[in-house]
Amino acid sequence: MPASKLYLAVVGVGGVGTAFLSQLASLPSSLRPTLIFLSRSSKQLYTSSYDPVSASDLPSSSSKLLSLPELTTYLSSAPGKAILVDNTSNQDVANSYPSFLRQGISVVTPNKKAFSGSLQLWTDIFDAVDSSDCQAMVYHESSVGAGLPVISTLKDLVATGDQVTRIEGVFSGTMSFLFNSFAPADGTGKGKWSQIVAQAKEAGYTEPDPRDDLNGMDVARKLTILARLAGLKVQGPDSFPVQSLIPKELETAKSSDEFMQRLPEFDSEMEGYKDEAAKAGKVVRYVGSVDVAAGKVKVGLEMVEKGTPIASLRGSDNLICFYTKRYGANPLVIQGAGAGGEVTAMGVTADLIKVVERLR
Amino acid sequence: MPASKLYLAVVGVGGVGTAFLSQLASLPSSLRPTLIFLSRSSKQLYTSSYDPVSASDLPSSSSKLLSLPELTTYLSSAPGKAILVDNTSNQDVANSYPSFLRQGISVVTPNKKAFSGSLQLWTDIFDAVDSSDCQAMVYHESSVGAGLPVISTLKDLVATGDQVTRIEGVFSGTMSFLFNSFAPADGTGKGKWSQIVAQAKEAGYTEPDPRDDLNGMDVARKLTILARLAGLKVQGPDSFPVQSLIPKELETAKSSDEFMQRLPEFDSEMEGYKDEAAKAGKVVRYVGSVDVAAGKVKVGLEMVEKGTPIASLRGSDNLICFYTKRYGANPLVIQGAGAGGEVTAMGVTADLIKVVERLR
Repeated sequence: MPASKLYLAVVGVGGVGTAFLSQLASLPSSLRPTLIFLSRSSKQLYTSSYDPVSASDLPSSSSKLLSLPELTTYLSSAPGKAILVDNTSNQDVANSYPSFLRQGISVVTPNKKAFSGSLQLWTDIFDAVDSSDCQAMVYHESSVGAGLPVISTLKDLVATGDQVTRIEGVFSGTMSFLFNSFAPADGTGKGKWSQIVAQAKEAGYTEPDPRDDLNGMDVARKLTILARLAGLKVQGPDSFPVQSLIPKELETAKSSDEFMQRLPEFDSEMEGYKDEAAKAGKVVRYVGSVDVAAGKVKVGLEMVEKGTPIASLRGSDNLICFYTKRYGANPLVIQGAGAGGEVTAMGVTADLIKVVERLR
Repeated sequence: MPASKLYLAVVGVGGVGTAFLSQLASLPSSLRPTLIFLSRSSKQLYTSSYDPVSASDLPSSSSKLLSLPELTTYLSSAPGKAILVDNTSNQDVANSYPSFLRQGISVVTPNKKAFSGSLQLWTDIFDAVDSSDCQAMVYHESSVGAGLPVISTLKDLVATGDQVTRIEGVFSGTMSFLFNSFAPADGTGKGKWSQIVAQAKEAGYTEPDPRDDLNGMDVARKLTILARLAGLKVQGPDSFPVQSLIPKELETAKSSDEFMQRLPEFDSEMEGYKDEAAKAGKVVRYVGSVDVAAGKVKVGLEMVEKGTPIASLRGSDNLICFYTKRYGANPLVIQGAGAGGEVTAMGVTADLIKVVERLR
């Protein structure tokens, strides 16, 4: 079956979505489904007769918007199998995955929300995949580490019968950048913590409100996904210890600006962690880990031995170590940029290719 | 279609093959094709009526052996689609891949020979895949770095339109072990080169004849595969510079034993490389690289900056860096054991699952 008999809906055309559409346009026709639905915020583009649409035709506003159930019906009635690419980080769209999948619509997404939310949603999604007899599939490589082959590798380890004993690493590009700047392994770090956060914010390395990075929830969501893939029934990202780098005293800050103004109050505490680590010949890093055997997940500051891959990280790279029975003492390690529109979109596009190869 | 309607032939039941059969047996039935043919050296097990066979029934000798063309006919006449898993390192089997593929038989293998041999064989294989309209596919993850996600990652980068500019790394577990022992980054290495080779040989870290590792051809074959996947028309592993660590003076050694006895003559030369690197604050490593833009591939000794991932490698780990346009200055890095029966078989089993998911 030619790929053009497969139908594609793309929800979300922001940074990742735009990069994805550009990558999609470059695919050979044998791998490119027919784009029939496109939406961005309150704009939608589609025709009732499933004609191909183009991103350049996305209207500035749409009068009649399809609700998520209506979109499900629209896609399930398409004249061929349909694939939904969700490039949003929207919880409502994520909550609809089981409905899409039950209607035979495959889902490809970097959206963490579906896989790191309630365990019930996770179960509903994969039950829907199972009961579709493999006709509807879900791929979400970019939900952890963007385009880095993290999810696919973990799935391969598990599927081939390896025992994953421990997963450990640096799962946030922002945290990586902050700590590699604040306490580099070669001891050259000079700036105060609050200065480094301010610089990172200005350079666009943090969310607009840096508290959205510093609370650790983004890392906790990624660890939830990995722990579940490794077989743990984790209830959610708030069901295990997550160390927030928002000091208790600043939790009442009403705005991002007020928070940044008062952050220097926290500098001596962070300097203390740095010095404590240095005295032990180590460096402080923001680490996430899953101890599969003990069933424990945690996220927070750790003192890391110099010379280890985690301590040697540079820039804003992510690093993920899989310790398994087969790999023994030396883990399987994956390292590289774990954020950014292009590399996130790459994970989405590569997943889409895999779905097309299975469906066509 | 249930996976049991897919038919599986396994050629080669040595270290990798045995580990593969064990992993195969653990797969859920939804992913496990029906095993109908098994061969090891001059033994074969199959029935003319395509009945399931079991490794425990492999006879001690077979009177009538199917030739490769006969096996092709046998499999193409099976009552469902057939998959050949080639766990040998046999050139004749590799040469037959185009025939298998043209008959609609998919191929899964860790055998480097097909992909690093003549460019004509490479072209024949992928032409056969293309002309099968995706009904016959070839997967060979374990041909580079065993179960590490090297081939799949490079394919995803290329397929999604990234520009791979450079591939660099340590592609031999044996070379990794030898140099990490001889010249570790922390300067603790004490043994002479010949002693370290002898220890590695005794511990089973080298081929029975260490010259099969030291000639660099295994690394050259892997680089040939990666360079071709990145788009270079490399004629073969002997078409670019490969530095052999078999000294000219010892090329005439008639046996592995004579070679090992005379290897100490080479110690001062190797010590020289080590000292030269140390004076520059570097370490000596056996590195392979593909410069995609310049179209250049090379394999040999390099002086590597301390603190870099290659210099910091431990044990017998492989390390592969992909420099691409999207990933920018910091490469996508994959690291871990790149040899061993279990992890090599893992790559084969994971590939088989992907083929089954596409065919069923």
